Amino acid sequence: MNRICRVGDTVRFPQPPVLTAWAAVAGKKESEGPLAQEFDELITDTRAGQKTWEAAESCFQRRAFDRMLEKAELTERELDCLFGGDLENQCTATSYTVRGLDVPFAGLYGACSTMAESLGMAACFVGAGLARRAAAMTSSHFCTAERQYRTPLEYGGQRTPTAQWTATCAGACLVEAGGDADVCIRAVTFGRVKDAGICDINNMGAAMAPAAASTIHRYFCDTGCAPQEFDAIYTGDLGQVGSTLLLQLLAKQGLPLHNHRDCGLLLFDAEKQTVGAGGSGCGCSAGVLCAHILPKLARKELKRVLLVSTGALMSQILFQQGESIPGVAHLVELAAAGVQEESGRKTGGEKGERL
Amino acid sequence: MNRICRVGDTVRFPQPPVLTAWAAVAGKKESEGPLAQEFDELITDTRAGQKTWEAAESCFQRRAFDRMLEKAELTERELDCLFGGDLENQCTATSYTVRGLDVPFAGLYGACSTMAESLGMAACFVGAGLARRAAAMTSSHFCTAERQYRTPLEYGGQRTPTAQWTATCAGACLVEAGGDADVCIRAVTFGRVKDAGICDINNMGAAMAPAAASTIHRYFCDTGCAPQEFDAIYTGDLGQVGSTLLLQLLAKQGLPLHNHRDCGLLLFDAEKQTVGAGGSGCGCSAGVLCAHILPKLARKELKRVLLVSTGALMSQILFQQGESIPGVAHLVELAAAGVQEESGRKTGGEKGERL
Repeated sequence: MNRICRVGDTVRFPQPPVLTAWAAVAGKKESEGPLAQEFDELITDTRAGQKTWEAAESCFQRRAFDRMLEKAELTERELDCLFGGDLENQCTATSYTVRGLDVPFAGLYGACSTMAESLGMAACFVGAGLARRAAAMTSSHFCTAERQYRTPLEYGGQRTPTAQWTATCAGACLVEAGGDADVCIRAVTFGRVKDAGICDINNMGAAMAPAAASTIHRYFCDTGCAPQEFDAIYTGDLGQVGSTLLLQLLAKQGLPLHNHRDCGLLLFDAEKQTVGAGGSGCGCSAGVLCAHILPKLARKELKRVLLVSTGALMSQILFQQGESIPGVAHLVELAAAGVQEESGRKTGGEKGERL
Repeated sequence: MNRICRVGDTVRFPQPPVLTAWAAVAGKKESEGPLAQEFDELITDTRAGQKTWEAAESCFQRRAFDRMLEKAELTERELDCLFGGDLENQCTATSYTVRGLDVPFAGLYGACSTMAESLGMAACFVGAGLARRAAAMTSSHFCTAERQYRTPLEYGGQRTPTAQWTATCAGACLVEAGGDADVCIRAVTFGRVKDAGICDINNMGAAMAPAAASTIHRYFCDTGCAPQEFDAIYTGDLGQVGSTLLLQLLAKQGLPLHNHRDCGLLLFDAEKQTVGAGGSGCGCSAGVLCAHILPKLARKELKRVLLVSTGALMSQILFQQGESIPGVAHLVELAAAGVQEESGRKTGGEKGERL
């Protein structure tokens, strides 16, 4: 049996790689939110005992990575590669975590789409036999992101209702070749960059929604699956504004979603926690995936889901130059072990092509 | 026959993917250097007709990408995926190029190691059957890099002798599954992050040399090859200082190199062009690879080489916080078509393991 089946933009694994361990670490605001009890660790000191927020963000990542390895009963030397990235300029939260690890490292930049991008890469590498064990990791930190993208925190700038709240979270996942595990990765769709002309850095949901719609639409075209086959379709951090737009865009394309959830709306209690349109940041979908979605799949409370992490590929300098914000969304299909595939799904032998 | 053989950190392709097209575009200073005539296009207007340097850098990338596709006689829609990144905060040179392209995109961040990282990814995806055609692309621009990492150009800051000159170059490569082509990719080694404690952003060569030594050493251990089997071992942008250090580090490890070249020392004429310790930037190894190395392989003037692009994973903010600079180096083994493999090479059946 071939290892890989590619149809359109979607790579499917006839022998799916499995998720054997994961961990999520979150900060103070998340510790007051609805998912607080589901995290492996809550660090309520925003500096995590470090001198700077940047060092704290690396510390969050390292804790998530270490907890993941502990659960897997492995050492870092048993990993073939690690994929990761973050929002800090030059992805330094990740580089500074990884310099303490002895693992081959491929750095990624996908803004807030990094969790699905890195998990998709790890799945591709393991699923195709390029690696036996690969890890995926990302983080974000409210304080490092605010001062980099917006204004110094001390300035106390007022937030617009469309603005989102960067999650202080890190998540790490371990992917291995098939075997005895509770959750597997069946397919990956790397997204195309879409720019709808949004220039407001306080409305990233709107900037990312077209990319999410594009990737979700392509996945369903490529696979022949239908949205109702899934227990839930999770987007990364579209928030309230982006989620509404996504549903409108997909309905227009004849693909109404009735099981959409957004990690940015799950992580915080929007009414009580003053987070504007919802949570955001690489750590948002990383935290919700590792603390909430994967454990539910492992317990078979969810059987089959899509994770579609969304990223706004902007920078301060291009915002100042008046540029609009391109978006990207990467998709990973996850299933509880033992869940049967639908028979209607396209395979390489039918409409696609096996490679 | 298996598609992939992994030994240690090195992925080898028993059926090597091939490079079917490539292109390189360079700027003014490069147009006065020793490789000027080898580029596909020279754009001597630093702004490339755009309003900003950032837009110009995207323009350089787009020209390289378009020239590559023209040579391959393909349209962008025939690509399965594109891997790329650059030095601008949030990799915006690449994001803003890619928003104009209709191709699945996985963004990378490897600083100046991005050419080997993206080419390595494209080779892995094609070599393992995850994609039929994949492109790798990167760029750098002297003016966008200087104002981001150092001081405004107008300030006219004096440069130290160890400082390097960021190349204004873009390169793009197309990788396809085996067939009739002049150059193939036999192996890829993704590097480990190394931090030797260098805190001087004007001495990146020293910061990157330990990572280059680590990756080169691992490649030779993993494969059982010897340096003298290669016509040349090219590092990305170690410059004069980093190259000297690399040779010292490898000699200490019992691996003297007599065929080392550095793209940063090839791109400019150090005596005439006032570039300090040599060229640097993602575009440095991208430009030298696509303008100089690949054409030589295609003409069989070179038969077998290693490209080891080197990256300094630093940011302004971490420099200001007094942090040292981690380095990373990724390696790609390239060969002219029809060149026989050495028999002494380790294969999965001997000391490694086939996956």
